[in-house]
Amino acid sequence: MRNKSEHSSCELPEPSRKTKLNQNRQYRFQDNFRWKGVKVCEYKTGGDNWDKIARQTLIGAGNESTKFHLRYFEIAPDGYSSFEKHKHEHVVIGVRGKGKARINRRTIELNFMDVLYIKPDEPHRLFNPFNEPFGFFCIVNAKRDRPKAIKEGTKGQRHIGTK
Amino acid sequence: MRNKSEHSSCELPEPSRKTKLNQNRQYRFQDNFRWKGVKVCEYKTGGDNWDKIARQTLIGAGNESTKFHLRYFEIAPDGYSSFEKHKHEHVVIGVRGKGKARINRRTIELNFMDVLYIKPDEPHRLFNPFNEPFGFFCIVNAKRDRPKAIKEGTKGQRHIGTK
Repeated sequence: MRNKSEHSSCELPEPSRKTKLNQNRQYRFQDNFRWKGVKVCEYKTGGDNWDKIARQTLIGAGNESTKFHLRYFEIAPDGYSSFEKHKHEHVVIGVRGKGKARINRRTIELNFMDVLYIKPDEPHRLFNPFNEPFGFFCIVNAKRDRPKAIKEGTKGQRHIGTK
Repeated sequence: MRNKSEHSSCELPEPSRKTKLNQNRQYRFQDNFRWKGVKVCEYKTGGDNWDKIARQTLIGAGNESTKFHLRYFEIAPDGYSSFEKHKHEHVVIGVRGKGKARINRRTIELNFMDVLYIKPDEPHRLFNPFNEPFGFFCIVNAKRDRPKAIKEGTKGQRHIGTK
């Protein structure tokens, strides 16, 4: 298992003093689901309950004053996000390939342009049991609580695997 | 010109007393950029400075407590949104076909997955000079001010047309 702290340097970016607040911006879409001017980060720098997932923060790292952040996550085949819960909600939009979402005890498939709303405090994980990359937008409140990891095998979560 | 009031019944939805707050939801993507369970509305019910544009509110009409709303707009060929400004910001993601955005005096093209951030109080319009439908997500703060229409030909905006 990796020895990593629980939070990503990309997750809650500090506004840069060099960047003016609220400038118009266009992030051009490029090959392979990259956006010009947007860096690809690790999903988190910590935790051992995720694998093969990368993050791009499209809105929220550029000194915008929006009450929300827009991120793009991509999960490689066999990868998965943390199984976790938090008070803030998720809005997920499938945009590349397909994947699955575990919402408490249910598992659903997420395809291109499917929109998923995950309510507060709901245990959840996104994962990719397929052979192609699974990419999705995830929109969250700008001000949000830190996720709490849920251990596999916790009471009531016994049957939740990654496939 | 149409005789319509300035605001849409879909724009600032009243929470339904019948709908419980914050239930998990999945909106399945369907043919022709429709989502199951999401109704297609007029862009606005008022104003005469827009044409051939429809709205679907994906997040924000279902009693979610998110600090943001997610809408999908679609502009038919030769259609355009209001030329307007407001204090709240826009985040726009191109998802169907291609179109253009006028940001103050500049015009840019918006293609699939391009992401556009429009800063507060910036005059803007989205329009479609192409032959296929132009569809995009637009994310806004849930609490936001009402747009102010800008007349074509206003000082400093003289050269702004729809093509």
